[in-house]
Amino acid sequence: MKRYRLDGSGSIEGLTLEEAERPCPGRHDVLVRMRAASLNYLDLKILHGHFPAKTAGLVPLSDGAGEVVELGEDVTRLAVGDRVASTFLPHWIAGPLPADARKVQPGATIDGMLSEYVVFPEEALVKAPAGLTYEEVSTLPCAALTAWQLFTGARPLLPGETVLVQGSGGVSLFALQFAKLAGARVVATTSSADKAARLKALGADIVINYRDMPTWGQAVRVETGGIGADHIVEIGEADTLEQSITAAAVNAQINLVGRPVGAPPIDPATLMRAIATYRRISVGSRTEFEAMNRAIEVHGLSPVIDRVFDFGQAPDAFATFGKRGHFGKIVIRI
Amino acid sequence: MKRYRLDGSGSIEGLTLEEAERPCPGRHDVLVRMRAASLNYLDLKILHGHFPAKTAGLVPLSDGAGEVVELGEDVTRLAVGDRVASTFLPHWIAGPLPADARKVQPGATIDGMLSEYVVFPEEALVKAPAGLTYEEVSTLPCAALTAWQLFTGARPLLPGETVLVQGSGGVSLFALQFAKLAGARVVATTSSADKAARLKALGADIVINYRDMPTWGQAVRVETGGIGADHIVEIGEADTLEQSITAAAVNAQINLVGRPVGAPPIDPATLMRAIATYRRISVGSRTEFEAMNRAIEVHGLSPVIDRVFDFGQAPDAFATFGKRGHFGKIVIRI
Amino acid sequence: MKRYRLDGSGSIEGLTLEEAERPCPGRHDVLVRMRAASLNYLDLKILHGHFPAKTAGLVPLSDGAGEVVELGEDVTRLAVGDRVASTFLPHWIAGPLPADARKVQPGATIDGMLSEYVVFPEEALVKAPAGLTYEEVSTLPCAALTAWQLFTGARPLLPGETVLVQGSGGVSLFALQFAKLAGARVVATTSSADKAARLKALGADIVINYRDMPTWGQAVRVETGGIGADHIVEIGEADTLEQSITAAAVNAQINLVGRPVGAPPIDPATLMRAIATYRRISVGSRTEFEAMNRAIEVHGLSPVIDRVFDFGQAPDAFATFGKRGHFGKIVIRI
Amino acid sequence: MKRYRLDGSGSIEGLTLEEAERPCPGRHDVLVRMRAASLNYLDLKILHGHFPAKTAGLVPLSDGAGEVVELGEDVTRLAVGDRVASTFLPHWIAGPLPADARKVQPGATIDGMLSEYVVFPEEALVKAPAGLTYEEVSTLPCAALTAWQLFTGARPLLPGETVLVQGSGGVSLFALQFAKLAGARVVATTSSADKAARLKALGADIVINYRDMPTWGQAVRVETGGIGADHIVEIGEADTLEQSITAAAVNAQINLVGRPVGAPPIDPATLMRAIATYRRISVGSRTEFEAMNRAIEVHGLSPVIDRVFDFGQAPDAFATFGKRGHFGKIVIRI
Repeated sequence: MKRYRLDGSGSIEGLTLEEAERPCPGRHDVLVRMRAASLNYLDLKILHGHFPAKTAGLVPLSDGAGEVVELGEDVTRLAVGDRVASTFLPHWIAGPLPADARKVQPGATIDGMLSEYVVFPEEALVKAPAGLTYEEVSTLPCAALTAWQLFTGARPLLPGETVLVQGSGGVSLFALQFAKLAGARVVATTSSADKAARLKALGADIVINYRDMPTWGQAVRVETGGIGADHIVEIGEADTLEQSITAAAVNAQINLVGRPVGAPPIDPATLMRAIATYRRISVGSRTEFEAMNRAIEVHGLSPVIDRVFDFGQAPDAFATFGKRGHFGKIVIRI
Repeated sequence: MKRYRLDGSGSIEGLTLEEAERPCPGRHDVLVRMRAASLNYLDLKILHGHFPAKTAGLVPLSDGAGEVVELGEDVTRLAVGDRVASTFLPHWIAGPLPADARKVQPGATIDGMLSEYVVFPEEALVKAPAGLTYEEVSTLPCAALTAWQLFTGARPLLPGETVLVQGSGGVSLFALQFAKLAGARVVATTSSADKAARLKALGADIVINYRDMPTWGQAVRVETGGIGADHIVEIGEADTLEQSITAAAVNAQINLVGRPVGAPPIDPATLMRAIATYRRISVGSRTEFEAMNRAIEVHGLSPVIDRVFDFGQAPDAFATFGKRGHFGKIVIRI
Repeated sequence: MKRYRLDGSGSIEGLTLEEAERPCPGRHDVLVRMRAASLNYLDLKILHGHFPAKTAGLVPLSDGAGEVVELGEDVTRLAVGDRVASTFLPHWIAGPLPADARKVQPGATIDGMLSEYVVFPEEALVKAPAGLTYEEVSTLPCAALTAWQLFTGARPLLPGETVLVQGSGGVSLFALQFAKLAGARVVATTSSADKAARLKALGADIVINYRDMPTWGQAVRVETGGIGADHIVEIGEADTLEQSITAAAVNAQINLVGRPVGAPPIDPATLMRAIATYRRISVGSRTEFEAMNRAIEVHGLSPVIDRVFDFGQAPDAFATFGKRGHFGKIVIRI
Repeated sequence: MKRYRLDGSGSIEGLTLEEAERPCPGRHDVLVRMRAASLNYLDLKILHGHFPAKTAGLVPLSDGAGEVVELGEDVTRLAVGDRVASTFLPHWIAGPLPADARKVQPGATIDGMLSEYVVFPEEALVKAPAGLTYEEVSTLPCAALTAWQLFTGARPLLPGETVLVQGSGGVSLFALQFAKLAGARVVATTSSADKAARLKALGADIVINYRDMPTWGQAVRVETGGIGADHIVEIGEADTLEQSITAAAVNAQINLVGRPVGAPPIDPATLMRAIATYRRISVGSRTEFEAMNRAIEVHGLSPVIDRVFDFGQAPDAFATFGKRGHFGKIVIRI
C-alpha cells in the first residue's frame, strides 16, 4: 500500500509518498481502506514544524474516511463494509475532555490518515452519516465537530437566537449550516462580495464585509436591533476577538476556536467589558460526533468542499490550503 | 365596557355578559384594550368549578392579547400603541418558578381576559411578535409557552433528535412547530386520518394513529430505529404515560403537561423502567416568553387556530372547546 | 482459586463454593486479587431469580475491591499493586448512560466479584480512594455512586439546601454523608429511635420516624419552614413516593432509585402535583466514580458498614442482607 | 436625617455630610433605617470619577443593611421590623442578567446607601440572614453575591474539587468560605505570612505566597498533583490572569471578577492554552442572594470584616480602603 510521510524538514517538499506493508488489526482493531482525508490548519502547522511534537516520519492528517475491510476477532462495534470516519481525539469517548486525551492525536502524535490503509482501535471510529460521499465524510472529524460545539455549551442555542460566524473556513461554514438547522439567525463576516453571496446561499441572514467595515462588531449590534450576537464562533485571527466582544449580547457565549498566531494582545479589561462566557472549544467526544452525524443524516446536510485533490497531488492540496483562499474544505481522495 | 363573569354555578349558562366601568391604571400599570382571548383546559375546569379557588364573580380566561391604550405615570417598559400579550403567571419574571407565583393567576385567582379593557401591572405583559394577528397572539401565553419548555430543560433539544407529541391540542401543535424550527424529527400521535394529514402538513415526520395502534409506544421505537424518542410532551390523558415510557429513548426527557383527570394509576416500577427524566412543566417565565416571541417573529410561525368566535358567542366557544374535537386553539375575538 | 456460583435454583442454598483455575489477563486486561465484595438489593433479586437474565452458573455480586496482581501487555492505566474497585457498568466511561451499556453488568449478565481472582478490562476499574480498607472500597461501585448522582443532575446541590433521604440502606447513608460534605441540611426518615440516633451521628439534621408519622411528607414541609426538600433520594418502597411528592419544594429534584417491587400504584395527577423533576438514576459513569473517590479521599469519608462476613460465610451474608435490618452495607471479605 | 453626597470633585474631600428630609415611600416602596454600609472597589472608582456616570450629587455606596421602618400601602413582601440588605442591581430578580439591569445601580447611577434613611422599591431588598449583625449584612450585596457565583455556573462545584482564590479582598474571602462550605479544597494566594495564617484560619488548605513564588500558577499545579484548579476566582490584577491559566485544570471554570485597571495585555493564544471556560461574573440575582443567605444562615457563616468606621468617619473609611491593605471588608456603621 501507499502512504505519505513527513520527513521533518518543515516544508511541503518533505511530504513524501512511500510504499509500506498493509498493517494488520489486533484483536480489538479494525482495518480501514481509507478513501478520503481532509486538511485542517493544524495539519499545516505540523507540516511546517510549528507543533510541539516531533514530526519526522509521521503520516500526516487527522481527518479521514473509509471502509472497514477487516476486523480483529474481538471487535463488536463495527462490521466489514461499514463506512466510517476517524476521530480527532480517539480517547475522548463521552463527557468532558479527559485530561490526557490529547496525548493520542492522529496526524500529530501518532500516524494519521494520508495512507491507503489504516488500523484503528474499534473505539476510535464512528459510522458515517448515510448519504454522504467519502470526501464529505472526511471533512467531519475536526471542523464539523468543532462547529457542533455550538450545541454543547452551558447555553443551548435557541430558535430565533443570533449566531455570529467569521469567514469561510471549515469550522465557520459548518457553524453556519448547523445554526440554520437549529433555527438561529446567522450573521457572517467575509472579505468579498463573491464570498458574501455564497454565504447567503448557505443560509446566512446577514453578511458583513469586514474590509468595508473594520469595526464590524458594532455593525452586528446594529443588525440585531442593539441586542448583539448570542453565540459567537471566534476564530481568533487578527483583531477578531475585540470585535466579537463588541458584538456580544449580554450573556453571550463566545466559543474560542483554534490557537491564533500573531493576533494582537488584548487588554483583560476588554475581556471583562462583555458580560459573557468565553469557552475554549476543541473538537468533541465520539458521542457528540454520533449525535452530529444523526443531525447531518436527518437533514441531508452537505459539507462544503472547496476542492478535491487526488492522492498523488497531496502536496498541491497542502499548498492550496496554505494560501487560505478556500471556501470550505480541501479534501484529498485516496 | 363589557365583560364576562362566572356566577359560580359551574355551567356554561353561568357565564354572563355584564356592563362595567372601564378600569384606571395605577402608577405602574397600563390599560389594555383587549382584542382576543384564547381557551385552555384550565379555563374549562374553572368554569365547571373543578379548581380549588372560588370562582363566583370571576372574569374568566388566562390568555389574552390587545393594545396598550393608557399608561400609569411611572410606566417605563411599554408605550401607548404597543401590541401585547398577557402572561399566565405574572409574578414569574425569570429563572425557575418562584414558590408563590401561582397565587396570582388571571382567570383563576384574579380576574382574567374576557373583558374589553383590562388593567395590568407593566411587569405582567410582553410585546407581541410582529406579524401575528391579535387572535394569534392570544394563543401564546399558556399553550405556546408550555410547548416552548422543550427548550428550557436540562437536556437541550438538538437538531436530528426525535420529539414525540400527542394529539391536536394547543400545546402539542406548538410543540410540533417549535421542534421543527429547531431541526428535530417529530413523531405525532392522533386518532384520525384527517388529523394525521394536518399534522403532516404542519411538519410531523411520522404520524401514528393510536386507535389503530393502542401500543403506539412500541411503534415509536420501531419508527426511530429502536432508539425511541428523546423528548416527549406527555399530555397525561388516559394511558398515554405508559406508552410514552415505552417510547422513551435512554436518557429521554419526558415533559409532563397539565393535570390529568381520570388517567389510570401507574406502577412506580413502570416509571423506573425508563432511564429518563420526568419533568413537570407549567408555562414559563416572562423572559422565556420573550425569547419564544423572538423565535416566532424570526420564523414567521403561525399559531394553529381551530376557530374564532365573536365576543357575544363566548359561551359557544366554551361549549365547542368542551367537545374536544378541535385541532389547535379556540379563540374569542373581543 | 475459589469462587462462588449460583446454581439457578433461586435460593441461598444454590450459592455454591467451587475450585476454579485462576484466569489469565488478555493484552488489555488486568488480574485482580479480590479482597472484598459488597451486597446490593439487585444481588438478592438475582439470587432469587427475579431478574431477566439466566443466572445458573453465574458468579454473583456486582461490587468488589482488590489489588492488581498482573497486567496484560498493552495495559497503560494501571500498575501491579494498585488498589482498585470494580465498576457496576464497565462500558459507561463518561457522559450520559450509553444506550447499550447495561448489557454488560458483572454479577448479572457476566460473572461477578465473589471470587478470589477476577480478570477485568483495564477500562473497567477505578483506583480506590486512599485511606479506605478493601471492605470499605467494595461498598462504593453501586451504592455510593448512585448517591453521588445528587451532584450530577440538572440542579446542582447548593450549600444550605435541604436533602431528604429515606431509611438506612447503603444509598441513603451515602447520600446523607455526601449531602453533608456539600453543605446541605439533611432530613432523614427512619423507623426506630436507635437508628434515628445513628443517623444523627452521621450528620442528619432532622430525623423523622415514619412509623410515628406516616404522613411524614407533611412533616418535612413543617421542618423546612414550609419550603420542602430541594433534593430527594426516593428509594421507592411502599408509599414513599407519595410522601416524597408532598415533601418536595417547588422545583425539587426527586431522584428515583432502584426498581420498587410491590409499591402501590400512583395516580399520574399526584405526580403532577409537585412542580418537580423526577430523575431516574442508576449508578454513574467511571469518570463520576473517580470524582467521587476524590471527594471521599479529600474528606476522609468512611463508608458505613453494618457487618463483614468471611468468604466462607457468603450464604450467611445473603441471608442477613435479606432480612433488611442492616444499617449501611453488608460486606464479604475475600 | 443625615447623608453623604459626592460633590463630583473626584477626591475624598468631596464626600460631604448633609442634612436632608427623610424620604417617604410610595405605594410599592419601603423606608429603611440604614444601619451599615460596606465599601467595594467600584465605590472608590466612583469617588475618584473613574466611572462613566456623572457623580456630582450622588449618595455613594452600593451595599447597605438596615431595618424596615415604614411600608407603602401596596407592599406585600416585607413588614416593619424586617432586617434587610440592599441589592446591587435591583432590577435583576432571577435568571440571567437582564440586558438593561445595569442602568439602575445604587451608589452609581442612583443614590446609594450612605444615608440614615433610604426608600427602596419592595422588590429591591432581601431579608438578612438570621444571626448576622447589620455590619455583617452590609458586606453581602456585592462581594458575597459575586463569590456565590461559584455555584451558579455551568459547572457545579463538587466536594473534593479545588478552588483557587487570590488575595484578601472581600470577594476572595467569601469565595474561600463558600468553597469550604461546599466541600472543596481551597488554594489561596497572598503576599505575607501574616495573611497566610489568617487565610489558613478561614479554612484555606494551601496558601501560596506570590511574592516568594511569582509563577504561582505552576505551584498550584504541583500542589494539586498535576491536575490544577477546577474553579478559579480571578481578580484580574496585574498578571494574575496568566498565572490562573497556568493553574487551570482541564475544563476549569475561570470566573472573571471586576474590571482590572492596568493589567498587562494578554496574548489570545495564552487564553487558548487552557481548555477552560472564562466566565465574566458580576454579582447575581435577588433569587441567588436569597439562596446565599439561606446557606449563610444554615452554617452560621461570619463575613470577614477588617474594620468598622462610624458614620462621621466615612472619609476615613474610603481612605483606609484606598490603601488596599485590608483583610476582608471595610464597613461604615450608620
